[in-house]
Amino acid sequence: MRHIASRDNPDYRGWLRLAQGRPGRHDARVFLEGEHLCHAWLESKGLPSVLVVGESALSLDWVGPIWAACARGRRVVLQDNLAAVLSQVEHGPAVFFIVETPAPEPPARITAGCLWLDRVQDPGNLGTLLRTAAAAGLRQAYLSDGCASAWSPKAMRSGQGAHFALEIHEHADLSALARRLDIPLAATTLDKAEILYVKDLRQPCVWLFGNEGQGVADDLLAQADWRIRIPQSTAVESLNVAAAAAVCLFEQRRQQLVAAVRARTARQ
Amino acid sequence: MRHIASRDNPDYRGWLRLAQGRPGRHDARVFLEGEHLCHAWLESKGLPSVLVVGESALSLDWVGPIWAACARGRRVVLQDNLAAVLSQVEHGPAVFFIVETPAPEPPARITAGCLWLDRVQDPGNLGTLLRTAAAAGLRQAYLSDGCASAWSPKAMRSGQGAHFALEIHEHADLSALARRLDIPLAATTLDKAEILYVKDLRQPCVWLFGNEGQGVADDLLAQADWRIRIPQSTAVESLNVAAAAAVCLFEQRRQQLVAAVRARTARQ
Repeated sequence: MRHIASRDNPDYRGWLRLAQGRPGRHDARVFLEGEHLCHAWLESKGLPSVLVVGESALSLDWVGPIWAACARGRRVVLQDNLAAVLSQVEHGPAVFFIVETPAPEPPARITAGCLWLDRVQDPGNLGTLLRTAAAAGLRQAYLSDGCASAWSPKAMRSGQGAHFALEIHEHADLSALARRLDIPLAATTLDKAEILYVKDLRQPCVWLFGNEGQGVADDLLAQADWRIRIPQSTAVESLNVAAAAAVCLFEQRRQQLVAAVRARTARQ
Repeated sequence: MRHIASRDNPDYRGWLRLAQGRPGRHDARVFLEGEHLCHAWLESKGLPSVLVVGESALSLDWVGPIWAACARGRRVVLQDNLAAVLSQVEHGPAVFFIVETPAPEPPARITAGCLWLDRVQDPGNLGTLLRTAAAAGLRQAYLSDGCASAWSPKAMRSGQGAHFALEIHEHADLSALARRLDIPLAATTLDKAEILYVKDLRQPCVWLFGNEGQGVADDLLAQADWRIRIPQSTAVESLNVAAAAAVCLFEQRRQQLVAAVRARTARQ
């Protein structure tokens, strides 16, 4: 059993950087903490690269089976005071997974409704966008360079489990991917746009949302099939990007639900 | 002209606490920074209690008229290095308003659609909720004890001007206010709730949203006329509170717009 008791241990220092949302430059790993996230990982992806457990947490009921399942070289006990520093949650049991950032392969053709984000900078917004997309029933998210890291602790906290319900493609070249689309690309913009509520959204589309201050980049916007705007009061300039996405994604969900109910009624 | 050059000046220390979102216990003042917020205040409320300007910002075109309009005892020049510490914005001109927190009187009867928040803790969520409410055309917000401070720098940043489009009632006793309602009280909950999209929302209502983890408190929920849920995928447990509010408020806006268009068409 590997046991770390020094704060100068290089592995420990690397985990601490991950936990604090400041990974090393080429570090593509993710830090997961606590029962909820660790179980979500186990269910959707399997065992972690490394299981790190604080001394006192080793005796927890739910930890035993995971500990037993991990190979010897992939499990580490941490002295409690070091584990407390690593923990980003107050009073949480010190159980951590270190895992490789999922890097799914983009499909040859995109045929399912999904979320595209262009340089969304705030990790809280990004996590909320993923959570909203998952709640709306989408299954894939594509994030351009310049987006906040989807797997940072902050974005994970805002995501509330959405990371495990979605296939997340980071560093996606959205302009290039636009050529793989078999469904419309819908972007929200205030300029030369149709009103959301007059748009027929029953078929799937790609929803593209842009940077908090600048919106969707011009070259990407030029590739959009639909330019959509949410009819809002002029009391404020715009909606927060995650709020705008919630309005659009759930308007589509509404139209799809209404259509499904009508189809069912017609059959009866 | 008053000129402050010492970081030990008690006024300066009080402003710094306000700027950093940690006001003294009985300090009911608000710190506003920059051209956009200061102008918004001027337009909606008038002159500030104190105008604070960094030495270098004193010569800015837009500052001159405000400086001239403020009484002598209510304007202060700050040495540039102190102003830089006070500033929460990178490279922004050092122009600050210190103002009294608006404390509007609640009406005897509540007849207009408005936003009620029960213990929404995160200042970012709170600001986004206000922004969404203003964008949806609401004009009043009532915030219970236990909500984040609406006028903290963080909530102001997320609000993006909504604070000046809304009448914000902080420390509101929502249970007591429920007895002043002439319109339905609508709360979102997952328990024994009607689906949002089957609800007739053409008439105004009060929208009540609750704490990020716990939702609306039971005693308040018991006072709700409508219990509403957003039909979402089970991939995540729930929506972020600000996302849920965006969906509800804009579904109401959609129904009202559709009704207005139909009424107009019928008249023609």
